Amino acid sequence: MAFNQNQTYKRIGIVGAGNMGTMMSLGFAEQGLDVSLWDISNENVSQAINMAKEAQEKEKLLKGKIEGFRDIHDFANSMKGDKPAVYIFSITHGKPADSVMEKIWDYLTEGDIILDGGNEHYRNTERRQKALASENVHWVGMGVSGGYQSARRGPSMSPGGNKEAIEKVLPLLEKFAAKDPKSEKPCVAYIGPRGAGHFVKMVHNGIENGMLSTISEAWSIMHKSLRMPYDEIGEVFKKWDSTGELRDTYLVQIGSEICRTRKTPSGDKKGEGAGTAGFVLDDVLDKVVQDDDNSEGTGYWTVSEAALRHVAAPTIATGHFLRVASGNRDQRLRVAENLKILDNIPVPQEATQNIKKAFLEDLRRAVYASFLCSFCQGLELIARASKDESWDIDLGTCIRIWRAGCIIQAGHIADMLEPVFHSDNAQEQPIMNIKLIDEVSSVLHENFQPLKNVVLKAMEWDNYVPSLSASLEYVKYAGGTMLPTQFMEAEMDYFGAHSYDRPHANGEDPGKTEKGAHHYEWKPA
Amino acid sequence: MAFNQNQTYKRIGIVGAGNMGTMMSLGFAEQGLDVSLWDISNENVSQAINMAKEAQEKEKLLKGKIEGFRDIHDFANSMKGDKPAVYIFSITHGKPADSVMEKIWDYLTEGDIILDGGNEHYRNTERRQKALASENVHWVGMGVSGGYQSARRGPSMSPGGNKEAIEKVLPLLEKFAAKDPKSEKPCVAYIGPRGAGHFVKMVHNGIENGMLSTISEAWSIMHKSLRMPYDEIGEVFKKWDSTGELRDTYLVQIGSEICRTRKTPSGDKKGEGAGTAGFVLDDVLDKVVQDDDNSEGTGYWTVSEAALRHVAAPTIATGHFLRVASGNRDQRLRVAENLKILDNIPVPQEATQNIKKAFLEDLRRAVYASFLCSFCQGLELIARASKDESWDIDLGTCIRIWRAGCIIQAGHIADMLEPVFHSDNAQEQPIMNIKLIDEVSSVLHENFQPLKNVVLKAMEWDNYVPSLSASLEYVKYAGGTMLPTQFMEAEMDYFGAHSYDRPHANGEDPGKTEKGAHHYEWKPA
Repeated sequence: MAFNQNQTYKRIGIVGAGNMGTMMSLGFAEQGLDVSLWDISNENVSQAINMAKEAQEKEKLLKGKIEGFRDIHDFANSMKGDKPAVYIFSITHGKPADSVMEKIWDYLTEGDIILDGGNEHYRNTERRQKALASENVHWVGMGVSGGYQSARRGPSMSPGGNKEAIEKVLPLLEKFAAKDPKSEKPCVAYIGPRGAGHFVKMVHNGIENGMLSTISEAWSIMHKSLRMPYDEIGEVFKKWDSTGELRDTYLVQIGSEICRTRKTPSGDKKGEGAGTAGFVLDDVLDKVVQDDDNSEGTGYWTVSEAALRHVAAPTIATGHFLRVASGNRDQRLRVAENLKILDNIPVPQEATQNIKKAFLEDLRRAVYASFLCSFCQGLELIARASKDESWDIDLGTCIRIWRAGCIIQAGHIADMLEPVFHSDNAQEQPIMNIKLIDEVSSVLHENFQPLKNVVLKAMEWDNYVPSLSASLEYVKYAGGTMLPTQFMEAEMDYFGAHSYDRPHANGEDPGKTEKGAHHYEWKPA
Repeated sequence: MAFNQNQTYKRIGIVGAGNMGTMMSLGFAEQGLDVSLWDISNENVSQAINMAKEAQEKEKLLKGKIEGFRDIHDFANSMKGDKPAVYIFSITHGKPADSVMEKIWDYLTEGDIILDGGNEHYRNTERRQKALASENVHWVGMGVSGGYQSARRGPSMSPGGNKEAIEKVLPLLEKFAAKDPKSEKPCVAYIGPRGAGHFVKMVHNGIENGMLSTISEAWSIMHKSLRMPYDEIGEVFKKWDSTGELRDTYLVQIGSEICRTRKTPSGDKKGEGAGTAGFVLDDVLDKVVQDDDNSEGTGYWTVSEAALRHVAAPTIATGHFLRVASGNRDQRLRVAENLKILDNIPVPQEATQNIKKAFLEDLRRAVYASFLCSFCQGLELIARASKDESWDIDLGTCIRIWRAGCIIQAGHIADMLEPVFHSDNAQEQPIMNIKLIDEVSSVLHENFQPLKNVVLKAMEWDNYVPSLSASLEYVKYAGGTMLPTQFMEAEMDYFGAHSYDRPHANGEDPGKTEKGAHHYEWKPA
């Protein structure tokens, strides 16, 4: 069917009244839309409606009405005046989303558009797109980034699916989306067909994992090795975020706030963080469980996809594995008893004011280099998948919609990369290896020594640097000319007759990424 | 159907006359079986038959006949005298295996057993098992390890599928399998139902990747930083392999041979390695391409499975990513031009005879610790998958069949682990975290300092240590009590309301691997 591009939506149906769904309801109502909100849990609906009331009383920003529904039939009826209708799903990926889709299926009519804002696996998205296509209903896999904070004030969104359908809802999404403070452009764009949108969101979260590990390792070095109090670390993060290569980096910025958040007698409005001394951060235990309890899939899907698509992604993977290993604290403590290595990270003798200033500058640059490594790995994964799947994703557009509203905002990196991806050269010949960009290799070159210094010191001090050290190795071997794989290749030829190419041989060095021309019979079989 | 356990096979049908298939034909003929060999390539069949003739003339070891077939009809006819028949497939995984299966389908009759000896993905194996079950034909996913060298002299095999069918062919496989030199037990056993056998072989190759990277990094440190000539490195490897914790480690042993293999005027029998001076290793370029050209899947499947099943496997993953990055040498050289970091690895000043002896002992122990990390990660992946899939895999059996014939043979590690897995405790309560084994944590404890020393020195020298450094970090965080994930958890609670548990709170510390009880409103949304 042809779309009526002039239809303007007056109402939006939001399915799922969890954190994200509730915040999006408020966000859209602020834009003047009426919102119908439905959830299988009555309690969630009540909570959302209460929160809307509170917000309205306090801020009076909601121009549209929010109506909550406990009955799907009533919910569907409320959407009838605005057909074809637009829905946003904010449901846990996988089976929960399937089950909700089944329930709503009968109420959908031709031309309806469903924006799935959950962190869904792109293959599930593609399956649902196919299933609904026969009904002329459009399922759009739309990454929504920024957490519940951004869902309220404007997130970054990466919709993928039917282009016409997405263009029809784009004006709506552009209003709601975060705006790049410099250009004022909204952080949303059509990403590509089929599962492209959810794939890009998945990789966004993978890059986030690499960055999260990197900044957490930097925090650990400052806190446990340099023995800096939280608020001093907060000041350092604040400075980093304000200027230079780490300016406008969301994870650094919120880190500076976290490190300076002191307990108060009454705590937050629910009483968390109540206390007369110390920092809220002291209340937080070191286990991250999202992966093991399956509430979040994007982190491990990214590692899996990188492996299956032959993209080296060590910063992302090692950061992810640290987080996975942290989840089962019970086992960790039992292993610790036996390992007896690091009961307490020792205070290094030399971690004094003398070296601190220079070291902190190295640390800033190391964090920057490792952030960039995480971007390289994620962008290369998108480039490879886009080619494999014929999605035709524009990497510059990804960078652009990541400029505000999302977790991996990194102002300097965006300013460096967006023009490169939008240059004529890159438009003609997509960039598959991000390290081949001159600006990127210059940064890696300039920050190699600081990264090395930090990793060496942190390892000497027995602190934790899984992603920082993986970034260091990645930079070395990505541009290494005599890798240890020479010996690996010989071993594989020995036991498996895997064959090798020869150095300096015409057509073999550098040659193609194909089976080599020679096998030596190291030991007659 | 009930199996006639007394049927003894006089003939085996081998499908696929590549390296592995040819060598297995010779191996089974040595055991006295007649072999029917078929391949879609006539050339492969001719080569195999010629090789068989040569072998017979030279060694006179073949007690059975090898017949080559170019026509599948004739091949099937040759198998009629020994019904139900047994076949071994030695075909590239995925589509090639499917296409051969389609061709042979009509010739299979009730009770036939097909042993798929290729490196197939376990999900494909399970799909074929289901498809053939209706015909009462048994498809067995059988990992065959040891490369073409072992395929001739006796490999390590991990069959998975219908237990009765596997028990029927087990006597045959036991004759052919490698024998543990100590116990003389054959390195083959029923692994579990469905895809269990191919899964175990996949993980074997994953462990192999971690070990391969580790030993190659050690080689690179000796060669490029300590400036040791190949033959001196070969002597070091020989010593390592002869005694102590690295004794009887296949990858070390063949490494010692590779490093001492000099070029000769005539080269090997095909003229490779011809020259008047230097080592064959000098002929080998540093690119490993098996992953990118899709001839091998097991390495990246392991990384993907570890991610999807929430098992931290950084040694295996980082080793794999090094190898992936090595494949495209053309791009690497271009990145190197821009990066300008490591045109040549500098000779470290201190790498003199003074420190060399102590450093080499540290290096030996670091390699041992990293090998053990690779085993921990692989075995934990098997344990997790076995639980998820109800395969009931016995880890002690895995260790036992890896004692000979296969690539990850490591005598000391096997001696340490097999009794633990076969202890009453482990039989009652399967071990899911290998680091909880006292013997393992003792080894990691004792070798932590050498591992740290080696990584620090190698990084200082700008050599490559992706898997060694990943192992060092892994050991630290596997038993870490105050991980950087404290800060990560706070950041995720900030932007995503992911919630946290509190230190020292009852039921929360260590608590479960589940969503935490507290959310602090760091910034009102």
